[in-house]
Parts: sequence; C-alpha cells; structure tokens
Amino acid sequence: MPQFEAGRFDCIVIGAGHAGAEAAYASAKMGASTLVLTMNLDMIAFMPCNPSLGGPAKGIVVREIDALGGVMAKVIDKTHIQMRLLNTGKGPAVRALRAQADKVLYQQEMKRILEEEPNLTLRQGVVEQLIVEDDEIKGVVTQIGAIFRAKTVIITTGTFLRGEVIIGDLKYSSGPNNQMPSIKLAEHLQELGLQTVRFKTGTPPRINSNSIDYSKTEIQPGDDVPRSFSYETTEFIVDQLPCWLTYTTPETHEIINENLHLSPMYSGMIKGKGPSYCPSIEDKIVRFADKSRHQIFLEPEGRNTKEVYVQGLSTSLPEHIQHRLIASVPGLEKAEMMRAGYAIEYDSIIATQLWPTLETKKIKNLYTAGQINGTSGYEEAAAQGLMAGINAACNVLGKEEVVLGRSDAYIGVLIDDLVTKGTSEPYRLLTSRAEYRLLLRHDNADMRLTEIGYQNGMISEERHTKFLAKKAQIDAEIDHLRKVTVKPTEEIQAIIAEVGGTALREPMKAADLLKRPEMKYSELRKVVPPLEEINEEVAEQVEIFIKYEGYIEKSMQQVARMKKMENKRIPENIDYDAISGIAKEAKANLKEVQPLSIAQASRISGVNPADISILLVYIEQGKIAKVSG
Amino acid sequence: MPQFEAGRFDCIVIGAGHAGAEAAYASAKMGASTLVLTMNLDMIAFMPCNPSLGGPAKGIVVREIDALGGVMAKVIDKTHIQMRLLNTGKGPAVRALRAQADKVLYQQEMKRILEEEPNLTLRQGVVEQLIVEDDEIKGVVTQIGAIFRAKTVIITTGTFLRGEVIIGDLKYSSGPNNQMPSIKLAEHLQELGLQTVRFKTGTPPRINSNSIDYSKTEIQPGDDVPRSFSYETTEFIVDQLPCWLTYTTPETHEIINENLHLSPMYSGMIKGKGPSYCPSIEDKIVRFADKSRHQIFLEPEGRNTKEVYVQGLSTSLPEHIQHRLIASVPGLEKAEMMRAGYAIEYDSIIATQLWPTLETKKIKNLYTAGQINGTSGYEEAAAQGLMAGINAACNVLGKEEVVLGRSDAYIGVLIDDLVTKGTSEPYRLLTSRAEYRLLLRHDNADMRLTEIGYQNGMISEERHTKFLAKKAQIDAEIDHLRKVTVKPTEEIQAIIAEVGGTALREPMKAADLLKRPEMKYSELRKVVPPLEEINEEVAEQVEIFIKYEGYIEKSMQQVARMKKMENKRIPENIDYDAISGIAKEAKANLKEVQPLSIAQASRISGVNPADISILLVYIEQGKIAKVSG
Ligand SMILES: Cc1cc2nc3c(=O)[nH]c(=O)nc-3n(C[C@H](O)[C@H](O)[C@H](O)COP(=O)(O)OP(=O)(O)OC[C@H]3O[C@@H](n4cnc5c(N)ncnc54)[C@H](O)[C@@H]3O)c2cc1C
Ligand SMILES: Cc1cc2nc3c(=O)[nH]c(=O)nc-3n(C[C@H](O)[C@H](O)[C@H](O)COP(=O)(O)OP(=O)(O)OC[C@H]3O[C@@H](n4cnc5c(N)ncnc54)[C@H](O)[C@@H]3O)c2cc1C
Repeated sequence: MPQFEAGRFDCIVIGAGHAGAEAAYASAKMGASTLVLTMNLDMIAFMPCNPSLGGPAKGIVVREIDALGGVMAKVIDKTHIQMRLLNTGKGPAVRALRAQADKVLYQQEMKRILEEEPNLTLRQGVVEQLIVEDDEIKGVVTQIGAIFRAKTVIITTGTFLRGEVIIGDLKYSSGPNNQMPSIKLAEHLQELGLQTVRFKTGTPPRINSNSIDYSKTEIQPGDDVPRSFSYETTEFIVDQLPCWLTYTTPETHEIINENLHLSPMYSGMIKGKGPSYCPSIEDKIVRFADKSRHQIFLEPEGRNTKEVYVQGLSTSLPEHIQHRLIASVPGLEKAEMMRAGYAIEYDSIIATQLWPTLETKKIKNLYTAGQINGTSGYEEAAAQGLMAGINAACNVLGKEEVVLGRSDAYIGVLIDDLVTKGTSEPYRLLTSRAEYRLLLRHDNADMRLTEIGYQNGMISEERHTKFLAKKAQIDAEIDHLRKVTVKPTEEIQAIIAEVGGTALREPMKAADLLKRPEMKYSELRKVVPPLEEINEEVAEQVEIFIKYEGYIEKSMQQVARMKKMENKRIPENIDYDAISGIAKEAKANLKEVQPLSIAQASRISGVNPADISILLVYIEQGKIAKVSG
Repeated sequence: MPQFEAGRFDCIVIGAGHAGAEAAYASAKMGASTLVLTMNLDMIAFMPCNPSLGGPAKGIVVREIDALGGVMAKVIDKTHIQMRLLNTGKGPAVRALRAQADKVLYQQEMKRILEEEPNLTLRQGVVEQLIVEDDEIKGVVTQIGAIFRAKTVIITTGTFLRGEVIIGDLKYSSGPNNQMPSIKLAEHLQELGLQTVRFKTGTPPRINSNSIDYSKTEIQPGDDVPRSFSYETTEFIVDQLPCWLTYTTPETHEIINENLHLSPMYSGMIKGKGPSYCPSIEDKIVRFADKSRHQIFLEPEGRNTKEVYVQGLSTSLPEHIQHRLIASVPGLEKAEMMRAGYAIEYDSIIATQLWPTLETKKIKNLYTAGQINGTSGYEEAAAQGLMAGINAACNVLGKEEVVLGRSDAYIGVLIDDLVTKGTSEPYRLLTSRAEYRLLLRHDNADMRLTEIGYQNGMISEERHTKFLAKKAQIDAEIDHLRKVTVKPTEEIQAIIAEVGGTALREPMKAADLLKRPEMKYSELRKVVPPLEEINEEVAEQVEIFIKYEGYIEKSMQQVARMKKMENKRIPENIDYDAISGIAKEAKANLKEVQPLSIAQASRISGVNPADISILLVYIEQGKIAKVSG
C-alpha cells in the first residue's frame, strides 16, 4: 500500500464512541493538539444498546466526569427525554441520577462539541496499523495509507475489534449494528504482542411504539423536579417522555425453555464471556428458574422516532423466536419488531497490561480506553476515555499524570480494578465494587474532583471561583452549626414535635440537633438561619456532612490507612523472583500486574497478606534486585 | 445456514435509501402490506453526497413526486436550512426549486414517516438471497436466515452492490461512507441471470466551518419569499442558513495537473463509468483546460453541525493531495478536512432488462429502483422508488399499472429513457432530456399528476377537492379573460404606459392584451378583476397558460402525435427475427428492449424510421409470429 505523510499531532484518538469522544475532548482542552480518527462521522457517540445513561454507580461516574471537566454530563443534560433521581428514599450513598437519551440528538450534540473544540481535528478514517519504534508509539496508518504521527495514541475501538454478530445458529463478521468490524487493527494489535481475550455482549430487540398497547403496562414518568448531571447546567428540559413497565409471562419462559437449544449461549457457539450482571433473558430464565416473571421496561429511543428499546429482553435467539418472545409480553401482543436482538463477540485487551494511567506497559505512550479494556457501558467507557485523554495530554505537556484513588472517585475504583485485577467478563461498575461508598456520593462529586479538573485546565476560572465559594459556604455553615446553641424555645419545640422527635430538655448545639435522624435541615434553618443565604446544593452538603459525620469520619480513617500503603511505592522493575518466600501464584500475578504501591499489590488476586508482609520487609531492607527493563 | 419462516407480505422493499423509502411508503399507502428490510435503521434516507435536493429538472421531479402523493417534498419542506427558486428571470419551463437539507433531520423525518405508516413494517436486516420459483419472485432470505415471503419485491440497494471505494492508488471493498458493502446479494443477482455493469460516482471532501475564512467568499442566502416543494405544506421555515461561493485558483489547477498520475481515474484503477455531467475536479480541469477557474460552493450539512460540503471539489486523489487542493482555494487556506473525498464503484443493473413499470422482464413481480438501475441522484432514485412502489401495489391489488408518459412528467422521461435506451454512465435528469419542457413545468406538477395520485389512493380526499377547486378556478379565469373586452379607458392606458407598452387603439380581449410580452397579469387584474378572489398560484397558472398558449398548443399537438404512436401497441412476445427487412442492429436492440409501443420502439437507439415503417406494416397485416415465452 502506498503511504504518505498526512500530519503530526500531540495525541491521536482512534474511535469516537463514548470513550473516544471524551478522550479527544480532554486532550484537546488541556492543550494537546488532537486528532480523532473514526470510522464513521455519522455515528459519533452512538448508543448501540440502551438509550440511557446513569443509574447506580454509573450515574455518579457521569457527575465525576463533569467535575473533572468532561462532556458526557453536559451532552445528556441537553438531549435527554426523561430524568429521574433513583433511590431518593434511601441514604445519600446510593442516590443516583438516570436519564433516557434522545439517541440521535445525543450523537449530534457530541459531534458538535468536538467540532467546536479548537485544538481538535475530527476526521473520518479507519486505522489499520500503529507505528511502533523501540517499543514506543510514533503514529498510526489508515486504511488509505495516510500516516499520522503523534507523541501519544489512545485506542478506543469498543466492540469493533474482530467483531462477530451471533444470533441463533449464525455467526458473521460485523461491528455492532451492521457496521464494519475492525479486523486488520485487531490482528495488528496481536502482532504487537498485546494480549487479548474474547468477550461478548448482547442487546434486545427494538419495537414500534405505534404497535404497543400501553394500557396493559405501567407508566414510568420522569421526575417533576428539574435536575442535571452537570454542575454547569442552568437550562432544564421540562417536556419529558414517560417509559413503561411490563413483565414477562409464563409463556415467555416456556418459549425460552423450549428453544434453548437454538440459543448460541447454550449450543456452545458463543465462546466469549458475557457480563453476568447484565444477562440475556435466556440466562435470566435459566439461572433464576424460580422467578415467575422479570421486568421489561419500554424505553423510547427519542422524541422524533417511534423506535422503542425493550429493556430486559436482551437475546440472541433466532429472529422468529424473538417475535414469539415479544408477543408473549402483555402490551406487546401485536408489537412490530424493528431490529432483532443479537449478541456480539469481540477482542478486548487484558487490562492488567496497563498502567493506572491507562498507558500500555508494553508500548510507551500508547493508551487504551473503553470497552476495548474489557468493560461494558457508556459511562465506564467515557470515564476511561477522559482519564486516558488527560494522561496522554499530561504526558505530552510534561505535567504530572493523574491517577484517581479508590477513595477519590468511582472512576478510581473502575480503573484500579481493571489494571490490578483484570476481569474475566465484561466489567460493569456496581456500587458494591467501592469500599468507600459513603465518600463517593452523587452529591459531592464536585467537592471531590473539581480541583483536579481545574489544575488540569479542564475547568474554567469562572466555574472554579464558583466552586470555591460553594465550598467556603459549606464549611462556614458547618462551622456555624457546630457553634450555635439552640435553646429550648417554643418555636424549636414545635418544629421538633412536627418531625416527631423528643422535645429539647436543655440547650444543644445546632449540629447535634441536626444529627437526630428525624431532624431536617430545612426545618432547623427556620430557627438557625444560615450566615448568608444558601441554595439547596449547599444545604444538602451541610446536612449530609453533619448527619453522616461519624460514618464519614470512619471512612476517612480507613482511607488514611490505605493511603499510607498507597504511599509505600514499589520500586520500578523490581525482580520478584529474587524475593524468597512469596507464594508462587502471588509471584506470577505480581510480575504480571507490576503494582506501583503496596496498596495496589495487596489488591491483586492471589496475593495474600503474608506475601505483602514479605514484600514490605524486602523493600524496607533497601537491597532491591531489578530485572533488566 | 438454518432458515426459518419470518413472515408474509404483499411487498418487500430491500433498502431504505431515497428510492426504498419512497417505494415502501407508496406501496403501504396504497394498501399493500409492506416490509422494508434495510441494513441500518440509523441510516434511512442518508445523503452520502451533497446535502441538497432540487435544482433544474430534479426540483421539478420533487414536485411531481408530491403531486403523485410521495413523501420527499414534505420531508425536505420540514428539514431544509435554505430554499431558493432558481432561474426566476427566465421562462417558466426552466424555473426550479432547490433546497439545502439538514442531513440528520432529513433522515430522522423520513424514518419517522415510515414508522408512522400503518401498513408498513420497518426492519433492520441484510438481504442476501431472493427466492425465485419458475421465474417468479416469492420472497427474500436475510443474512440471519429469515425467510420473508412476498408477492412482490423491490430492490433499491443504491451503490452498495459489490461497492468498492477508490482513493488514490487504493481500492477496497466498502459501501458508501464506510458502511458495509452488499456482496452476497450482488453475486446472487448475477446468478439469477440479471446483467450488471460497473458504474462509479464520487464525492468531495467535507471541512469544518470554524476553519473557513468566509470573508474571502461570497454569501449565497436563501430566498426571502417562503416557498415549498409540497403542495400541502402550510408552515414555512423562516430561519435560513446561507451557503458561500468561492473559486478554484491557478494553484488548484497546478496541483491537479502535477498529481494526475495519482488519480485512479487516469491510472486506470477505476473501470466503472462515471457521470460526465457531474465530473470530479480532476476531470473538469483536464476536460476544460482553458477555463481559469471553477465555482466552489460551501454548503452547511445542517444546523447542528460544523461540517461543510465542498461542492465542486469531488475527487479521488489521495488524501494529502486533497489537503493541498482545499488549501489552494480562497477562504479555505486553513480549512480542516473532516472527511476525504472518494469515488465508489458498484454494480448496477442494465435497465433495458426492465419493463416501464420497473418490473424486471426476467423475474416476474421483481422490481428494481434507484441507483441500482444506473441513475445517480436522490430525486431520480426517489422518483423510481415511488413508481416501483405504486406498480408493485397495483400488481398486488389487481389495479392497472401506472406508466407515466414523456409528456406527463420528468419521471416519465427518466424511466422511459432508462428502460428504452439504457445508459452507458450514471444517468442524471437534465432539462435537455425532455422534449416537452414547456409542459413539464415546476408550477404545474399538480395539474399534471394529482389526479393519478388520487386514483391510486395516494392523495387524500381533502387535497383532491382543493385541487379540483383550484383547477376549476383556473379554467374559469382563463375563460373569463378570453371573453372580457378591455376598452381603451384612461386607467388601462396608464397601466400600459407604466409597463412600457403601446397604447390601446380599440377594444381588445383581455386575454389578447395579456399575451403582450410586457403586460403583467398582476397589472391587468386591476382593470379586469377576477370572477372570484384568486391566490398567487392560480394567477400564475392563468398567466402562464395565456402567455404561452401558442407554444403550449404546439407542444400538445406533438404530444397527440406521439400518443398515437404510443397507442400502437406491439404484441407481446413478437418474433422480430420473423420480420424481414429490419436492420440487424435494430433487430437486436428491439429484442433486448421488447418495446411495448411503436413510439417506444422508435426511441430505441439504432432503430431507424425505416425499421419502424416495416414494423408498423408487419403489425397492421396482423399475421404476427411469436417467440415462445
Ligand atoms: C450489541 C451491544 C450490546 C451492548 N449491551 C450493553 C449493555 O447491555 N449494557 C451496557 O452497559 N453496555 C452495553 N453495550 C456496551 C456499550 O455500547 C459500550 O460499552 C460503549 O459503547 C463502549 O464505548 P466505547 O467508546 O468503548 O466503544 P464504542 O462506543 O463502540 O466506540 C468505538 C468507536 O471506535 C470506532 N472504531 C472502531 N475501529 C476503528 C478503527 N480501526 N479506526 C477508526 N475507528 C474505529 C468506531 O467507529 C466507534 O466510533 C453494548 C454494546 C453492544 C455493541
Ligand atoms: C460517494 C457517492 C457520491 C455520490 N455523488 C453524487 C452526486 O454527485 N450527484 C448525485 O446526484 N448523486 C450522487 N450520489 C448518488 C446518490 O447518493 C444516490 O443516487 C442516491 O442515494 C441513491 O438512492 P438509492 O435509494 O438508490 O440508494 P441509497 O440511498 O444508497 O440506498 C440504498 C439502501 O439500500 C440498503 N441496502 C443495500 N444493500 C442491502 C441489502 N443487501 N439488504 C438490505 N438493505 C440493503 C442500504 O442500507 C441503503 O439503505 C453519490 C453517492 C455516493 C455514495
């Protein structure tokens, strides 16, 4: 193939899905000249599966992305058809926003933002090769022979690498949604020595809204209170569309049980490992055989389309069985199927080959982010994209790299899990993966991360100033409540009685009164007016902080202990073979992951406390054998 | 491949591009249960080339589509960013509307219309085989083994059949815009004995608006007067976006001349025949070497994107040369390229294998429409789609087929040209292809075709009633003007003087006065008020009819003569070999085309008047030999 020089950039991002868009935006915003090469400009930030963002853990990630200066939150705030705050009745740690997206508008808005970014060049093109010299990335080569050189490259090719669609007994080479797969690049990555594994994921059928009998379903409207993912959003969408809830029936279960032999999952056709928390309907019915029905949510794909996503009915059974499945669900008796569900198998990179910056260990200045790293989900992809983009730009600009800790953000948990433990199936963020859930809240993402975004030039002066003012207000108000004494006046007794508490016997600090479970800050404020007027966001922070102070305190102590271990760095290129006493399996895993700290080492699977002690002693002795790197 | 029965329909349309969308809508609207199978539901009615509709001949086709009850006009009326009436200074025969589309909105609106159509099922799927029994179509088989049975099938696969993208020295298998090509279906069509030919077409690069220096270009705003393609549109878009005009420079021409050896057109890489009236910039510079510059129009691709289409710079030179070409154009010195231009080669069906209904002669009840038939252009595709859809539905419903004559519509000219003469390069409609240009006007498409649309159930009662009223008003007013005598009053003399005519000497019929070139109906109306109040549309018809009466008359006489020949039907399966005297070449072509009438026979290339005379005599003698069919 004749090749030609086509340009030089600080950073090249391959792919403009959810990871690529965020990576490119971050790198350009930070000041690195950035090129995005993507297969199809008409499919930027396309949602091949559910038209929704957020929910438990994932929703918090979207807010974290925003606090760091990323774009996902802003885009969904402008393009959703419905927004809900989940778990409002439960504690603050599990609250999370969830939005239904207008699929096409989401794509358009993301494309527009990338087009508007001055440091960013958006180009349609298919990458087939990387240019690697002395184990260092130097650029990429496209399908038409264009050589683009760059100091850093980020691969975000999602499920495209050797993608194969599977449905019924059939398997054929294809990217998601009948797009082109990426075969040459996948082969090339293997040639370069990057280890890959086959994963799979699936999607349910789509149906035509006009053919649904909604009277047999339950309406699921959006919240009345306007909310947003981004801390910068000031305009809210009021005109929302509802979703609808229905259920599988015994007939659904019968159809599946009768046709299991036609399912590629059970016939052995699918080799790739699928996500167990996001199972197909076949899986659900086999694994939870005692459950008599499963929820089916009907989610509109946008304002200008009749296409409806059938959440809960992910399947790769043959098309005619899918028809029968759909028809067995109340309200869908006459539903017209517009797209059949399918499963897709693809190559993903074993993520223990990455540093916590998402740089590959094998090839310097090459990063990977998104589903290629073994995750699933738009938010997980975007979060990695953002961090890879920030780190690639830091790398180019000579800034210090940015690695979020497990106590800083869900994003930190996600990336640490990936690079430390790897994953044996498509990885999805769940609240249960975080040990400091009470710290990693939906409501305080800005408190946790705005400063980092600001230091990296991703957050504007104006936003930062506002943020500092908010923070100061919160601190001042907490301080104020700790100092002010509430006397047992008639007014306060009335309020206490109103919320069902026990009357005050003697004066009490306002903060202590607020700690009472039944007491609400909105009530207390009537007798202890804030120092200056405060808005609901500030009030929420003050209230949560004071109410959960004890728990937060405890978490912070754990974090401090962990941080100490995190600060115990493991020297580069340490020769684990030279350390006697560490168990064989632990040794192998340590060598693979090359942890940067004792804390990280302790999270590696197969590494036991005894191994960690030996390692600690060895490092403290100071005579460290190194492998030639 | 395991196959299964997936459903039965009256009509299946393969593909949902511009032809497919129109075909499916028509067939469903007429009452045939219709299934559309298309590769990608996110790419319905996608515009892979210029984001615009209309212009000379093509604009008239869009109005004809509307008069027949099709959808293209309605969709563009709702989604354009700019509308202009071209050639307003010239005669009514060459006037034409042209609109710039918002590419994404156009797709969304077309998809929505198809989703809303009750008789229509829209399904994502890739067709790989047709089911043909005894030379009759019975259904289709998709990539995943679904068998859909149908009484009629319409193939509208555009440039996808064995698509190959060509750029510089490179050629690779691909549909347009990095979509999947359709290889199996192409091979299957050849196996079925349909003859194909390789054609090619090309597209220019797209650039980022933010990188254009518009101060070096000329603005091209839309019209102030609101206009529409559809006769039913009542809401008009007022907020329009401008286009911009710039030119190639001597440097552009130099770059091309120096790099011609890299062009696939000249290196022999491209075998397919391209459209000569829609040449690449390489072609233009080689063929019109004396022209010192060519126009370049900068056309926005939509309201929510910065992507700009560079009309006039269609090219398949390598990407780095395209960069230099762009930079050589004033205003584009720093332009950022978002997509490179490319050429695409594909299989198209030799259209003389079709009846004028667009049914294939070889396989009963199988129709083909759009670019697959050797045309290029969205309007040409949509027009064929509409007629194939109507005829497939007529076929199913036992109605009489609808074949438009060359004097009825540009659509008639298009299809007659295709099936009678075939085409040696991608066929584009031009005003010069029509012999009755004065009859086939932009302004009278409704007069010519609404009745046909109505008879086929494509036009609502309400619209038809309105149409009849308009028609009656026009006739009454013309009659009125012919009868009323204008006396040489002071008032009329003043009007005549005002428009620069010679004063009236004696009384004169109003119609005759209006025939004077300088007289305007808007002026004349002041002294000859209409019988009842009339709107501008009616006034326009009255004025054009009276002013051009002589020419229209003459055209009508020609049409009458042609119709006589059109009515001389040629018996089915006539054995041309049995007719002595017809020249050899004429015989071969007659056998290929199998013309239905003497008129059609006379338009076949290589068939001379002498051959026609012999044929006429032979038929009139009545002893007709037949081939066994
Ligand atoms: C069938 C299916 C079902 C899914 N189901 C779920 C689910 O149930 N739950 C869930 O959370 N997530 C699901 N997902 C996953 C979700 O879609 C992804 O996690 C998310 O889109 C990943 O984002 P990404 O940016 O990593 O990749 P993608 O969004 O896939 O983007 C990849 C990008 O890379 C481009 N590209 C690929 N190869 C090249 C190349 N060689 N050169 C240039 N560009 C290239 C593509 O054009 C695209 O722009 C599903 C995905 C699919 C396909
Ligand atoms: C690169 C390029 C440049 C062009 N330049 C010009 C130009 O300069 N001037 C001009 O007037 N026109 C131009 N055109 C042509 C214009 O795009 C077409 O004429 C028009 O889109 C044709 O409409 P269609 O409906 O026939 O095909 P398309 O719009 O291409 O639609 C084909 C449809 O068939 C579907 N399909 C294909 N195979 C299968 C299958 N096996 N199963 C199911 N579905 C299938 C596709 O997904 C698609 O929906 C250009 C086209 C291209 C690609």
